Amino acid sequence: MKILLIGASGTIGSAVKANLSQRHDVISVGRQSGDFQVDISDSASIRQLFEQTGRFDALICAAGSVNFVPLADMSASDFSLGLHDKLMGQVNLLLIGREFANDGASFTFTTGILNRDPIRTGASAALVNGALDAFVKAAAIELPRGLRINAVSPTVVVEAMHSYAPFFRGFKPVPASEVALAYAKSVEGLQTGQTYIVG
Amino acid sequence: MKILLIGASGTIGSAVKANLSQRHDVISVGRQSGDFQVDISDSASIRQLFEQTGRFDALICAAGSVNFVPLADMSASDFSLGLHDKLMGQVNLLLIGREFANDGASFTFTTGILNRDPIRTGASAALVNGALDAFVKAAAIELPRGLRINAVSPTVVVEAMHSYAPFFRGFKPVPASEVALAYAKSVEGLQTGQTYIVG
Ligand SMILES: NC(=O)c1ccc[n+]([C@@H]2O[C@H](COP(=O)([O-])OP(=O)(O)OC[C@H]3O[C@@H](n4cnc5c(N)ncnc54)[C@H](OP(=O)(O)O)[C@@H]3O)[C@@H](O)[C@H]2O)c1
Ligand SMILES: NC(=O)c1ccc[n+]([C@@H]2O[C@H](COP(=O)([O-])OP(=O)(O)OC[C@H]3O[C@@H](n4cnc5c(N)ncnc54)[C@H](OP(=O)(O)O)[C@@H]3O)[C@@H](O)[C@H]2O)c1
Repeated sequence: MKILLIGASGTIGSAVKANLSQRHDVISVGRQSGDFQVDISDSASIRQLFEQTGRFDALICAAGSVNFVPLADMSASDFSLGLHDKLMGQVNLLLIGREFANDGASFTFTTGILNRDPIRTGASAALVNGALDAFVKAAAIELPRGLRINAVSPTVVVEAMHSYAPFFRGFKPVPASEVALAYAKSVEGLQTGQTYIVG
Repeated sequence: MKILLIGASGTIGSAVKANLSQRHDVISVGRQSGDFQVDISDSASIRQLFEQTGRFDALICAAGSVNFVPLADMSASDFSLGLHDKLMGQVNLLLIGREFANDGASFTFTTGILNRDPIRTGASAALVNGALDAFVKAAAIELPRGLRINAVSPTVVVEAMHSYAPFFRGFKPVPASEVALAYAKSVEGLQTGQTYIVG
């Protein structure tokens, strides 16, 4: 399979690459790094990416930013990054990417635990993750040509604990290699409309 | 209690008003109708509303629009109404309204069944409902002064079936009066961070 992996240089993305590149042609995409560059918060940049990569069998997005701010300090503008980058960035990867997707291709997006198990400063992350888990479930039933769409929703990963630990006290981190399995299940399995919870 | 009810003239809002006005001082708010007017998609309009109403013990929002469009025809712009009106409109009612909320006041927002049980044309509705259910859960743990926040997530209501029936084949509609009970539970009970599913 020809797999486009956005966020391939990241903590999660690099584990996904290590897993899937054993069996597939994985094309690495990043904002600055990788074989190709994209800014998922910019629709024109997304279209340009697909014009460069051509058709694909699977698209994985392991990228997407949100702001972490105490609720007491939040105003509407603190939600903008999450809405435009992690949320609509991934939605647009489907809306635009479907034109370039081969029959039966899959889209696998990344959400996260914070809508199920919230933390201080996590209101925007929770909102975005909840939106994406729901979008995946709803979009799946309307996709034509055997196209599929799933989300992977990991808890905090071991490899990120050096910087995230203070926000995730009491959470049991999972190794990124274990998170990568969920992406393999999404890409190489046949399910659609699922959120695969890891951890 | 002094309760601000946004969307008081609507299908759901009028049932909520009938229930709560038996025991409380319910102030009706609408876009055009009601004792006061607000456009929830406009932060300045929200602030103006609270400057007019003064402090309150409960805020209910039974308003909020999204676009219903077949996924095949959707582009990013079809998500804008839902993001700015139903989603960020209600988020902003909390972010701004908390300044005017008495200690122990509650915020009750409206989501809906479509993130749990999706329908054709419902991708934006699902995304917005999922975002709000998650936001409520996350924001609840950070609210000070005994402030509470819940969502009510109804299935389609009987009184709306005259226009919604073709989109909701096989759904069992509930009377708006039954949906109104969930708002009473949110306002008059003590729970927070909940999504009350009705139907
Ligand atoms: N780390 C965790 O514990 C964890 C747990 C649950 C969920 N998540 C979610 O998983 C996703 C990835 O997290 P991570 O920790 O693996 O990230 P990371 O290590 O910070 O890596 C981010 C990757 O995404 C790329 N990227 C960032 N912004 C982009 C944009 N606007 N357009 C295109 N590419 C972009 C980066 O490319 P460059 O390197 O080229 O800049 C990099 O490859 C995030 O959505 C995060 O919320 C993470
Ligand atoms: N009806 C259902 O079966 C059903 C089921 C599940 C969820 N819901 C959700 O429940 C909410 C209310 O639905 P409904 O059917 O009761 O609505 P509705 O009958 O159309 O009434 C909408 C109410 O909201 C007000 N409103 C609309 N846009 C507004 C804005 N931007 N700012 C302030 N007020 C605004 C209207 O005021 P004016 O009259 O003054 O214009 C009216 O009072 C919606 O979010 C809907 O998705 C509805």
